[in-house]
Amino acid sequence: MAFGWIDEQAEARRRAGLVRTLRPRPAQSPLLDLASNDYLGLARHPEVTAGAAEAARRWGGGATGSRLVTGTTELHGELERELADFCGFESALVLSSGYAANLAAVTALAPYGSLVVSDAGNHASLIDGCRLARGTTQVVPHVDPDAVRKALGTHDGPAVTVSDTVFSVDGDAAPLAGLALACREYGAGLIVDDAHGLGVLGDGGRGAPHAAGLAGAPDVVVTVTLSKSLGSQGGAVLGPAAVIDHLINAARTFIFDTGLAPAAAGAALAALRLLRREPGRAARAREVATALHTRLTAEGLSAVRPDAAVVSVRAPSPERAVRWAADCREAGLAVGCFRPPSVPDGVSRLRLTARADLTEEQIEHAVDVISRNR
Amino acid sequence: MAFGWIDEQAEARRRAGLVRTLRPRPAQSPLLDLASNDYLGLARHPEVTAGAAEAARRWGGGATGSRLVTGTTELHGELERELADFCGFESALVLSSGYAANLAAVTALAPYGSLVVSDAGNHASLIDGCRLARGTTQVVPHVDPDAVRKALGTHDGPAVTVSDTVFSVDGDAAPLAGLALACREYGAGLIVDDAHGLGVLGDGGRGAPHAAGLAGAPDVVVTVTLSKSLGSQGGAVLGPAAVIDHLINAARTFIFDTGLAPAAAGAALAALRLLRREPGRAARAREVATALHTRLTAEGLSAVRPDAAVVSVRAPSPERAVRWAADCREAGLAVGCFRPPSVPDGVSRLRLTARADLTEEQIEHAVDVISRNR
Ligand SMILES: Cc1ncc(COP(=O)(O)O)c(C=O)c1O
Ligand SMILES: Cc1ncc(COP(=O)(O)O)c(C=O)c1O
Repeated sequence: MAFGWIDEQAEARRRAGLVRTLRPRPAQSPLLDLASNDYLGLARHPEVTAGAAEAARRWGGGATGSRLVTGTTELHGELERELADFCGFESALVLSSGYAANLAAVTALAPYGSLVVSDAGNHASLIDGCRLARGTTQVVPHVDPDAVRKALGTHDGPAVTVSDTVFSVDGDAAPLAGLALACREYGAGLIVDDAHGLGVLGDGGRGAPHAAGLAGAPDVVVTVTLSKSLGSQGGAVLGPAAVIDHLINAARTFIFDTGLAPAAAGAALAALRLLRREPGRAARAREVATALHTRLTAEGLSAVRPDAAVVSVRAPSPERAVRWAADCREAGLAVGCFRPPSVPDGVSRLRLTARADLTEEQIEHAVDVISRNR
Repeated sequence: MAFGWIDEQAEARRRAGLVRTLRPRPAQSPLLDLASNDYLGLARHPEVTAGAAEAARRWGGGATGSRLVTGTTELHGELERELADFCGFESALVLSSGYAANLAAVTALAPYGSLVVSDAGNHASLIDGCRLARGTTQVVPHVDPDAVRKALGTHDGPAVTVSDTVFSVDGDAAPLAGLALACREYGAGLIVDDAHGLGVLGDGGRGAPHAAGLAGAPDVVVTVTLSKSLGSQGGAVLGPAAVIDHLINAARTFIFDTGLAPAAAGAALAALRLLRREPGRAARAREVATALHTRLTAEGLSAVRPDAAVVSVRAPSPERAVRWAADCREAGLAVGCFRPPSVPDGVSRLRLTARADLTEEQIEHAVDVISRNR
């Protein structure tokens, strides 16, 4: 049998208790959500869903082709201009997902003969970008500018350093200023993935690079996703106009992919405008994260101090993590559960996300449920 | 300067006349569209755009997380069941794009130690899947089951053959029955990308694998995109339930990517239901393609006989192809223009797409414009 080898792997997963299954949710979930990446609570906001609906009506259900053929609408252009302006970069390029944006940025900026220095805790999409790139990748220890320096020092020719700004599993921040310094010493570029920073960090949610004073720098390229704080789908690359033009001409996940659906562009644009009008949402998401962390540690739980809106709580074992998350769900609370093989370090944890629209009461209740079910 | 090397490449592109630029289109384009992949003319259909709008209102602007966390809704489940049923497969898995679906299928089904046999004309996303997969890839000549046989004969252990069903550039079809036979001789799996077959080929648009009698086969896996005939965005993998379960557990572009936006799922579902109700749309798209081909060749142009809805017309050079497409546009007709480096064989061509909703008059007019501007 052609795919017979799959059954053995499935059996091994079953024995190890590592089977993943999909759990479809209804439109109105009874669960309190501390598992999604909807940090600003905008995915269900009426302005955002109206933005999606109106864009679909006006522009169609899909983009109908690659953005180089028929897939670029004035709506895509508008979103790109407003995103670039908000985050403080010269240009932006919108792609069909944050994953595709990371593949595009890393592959197009790490040509044959170049070096890519990649943080050991980077997101899967950055790792896949490194694997697809023609350059050589060197993985360096987590959040370590000196290691980056050392790696860059071994190489002649174009080089880039690649890092999440906020790491998706533990929610810890990268030392962006230190990384930028290290890169500049060696004339290397810096590519950072602000998926979990946009909308949460920086002035009014302008993101981690903006907060670190790197917005608009000629040697910095930022990727973002429209699927988290902006409550939609899609991704973007932000940077100097010359870099964006280069991506338009060289990035395979841009050239050979259908453009982002108008509804997704419309939802993201509505969310971005809302965030501009209500910049306090960003600070509130951080506040909620801090409140969660403070109260969970007060209950004796081991949690990483959040740098953004992700709060990671240690679990004693993969089995206990799964059980813990299931018990929380039973009690009406959705939390994320990360365990091998999707954590790089083998440590299982509950992953909680703060949302700007959580009330004091909900925070209280969430901490109570998590603590009670430990 | 970190990204200084980009300027040289840009200069080389300029000198070679190969610069690509984005041309945003307005909501109501005055151009007659023979460039998009909207084969059934459904992207702007009121039922499809209403499907998108309603889904956004009901389910939100985005899926809010990985489908393994909060990103699976009942809407995703519904779409998966109806897609699998329509195409004749046991199970389906929806991803954020056709590109992501191809990366998922190839990487998850080509583990370490396996062989991937890949047609030389395959789409970029299949090629990137091969590059990311842990298995070893052997590229074989275009549409050549004997070459596949020979490649499979050199290998011990799991193997898959990977092919487009309809090649995106020239619109020619893969010899699916021959490929399946070759694979079966060696116990290999067959992965085919039906991006340009779904909605166009097979009974009522059930796709090329269905037409070839391969629907539901235990050793066949099909990828489709929701962004062409279904007028939306997204992709799916169709196959045996065990294979789909394996992807849920192993495919990185599934696990580490936000779920498809509800609006895109809603638009695709509405398009699928419409196609079921109006199966004649598939035959009409093929009819229009044949009409275009017949009339263009009658005008003395060199065009590939279409196996689906793509009609490829040879151009004498890259410069002439660009000029030809520009002149058509000037005359009110949008056509695709493919030239190096996005064609594997160095041959430049105009790429026309048939749409089921083109009238006789529009076909006549299109042929006239193309012929006049050669
Ligand atoms: C750090 C990071 N980068 C990129 C992505 C991919 O973005 P998207 O889901 O929009 O494709 C994610 C999560 O999904 C992420 O956590
Ligand atoms: C053959 C083929 N496969 C896959 C894709 C990618 O699908 P999507 O654009 O939906 O990501 C495309 C075109 O975009 C294609 O032509």
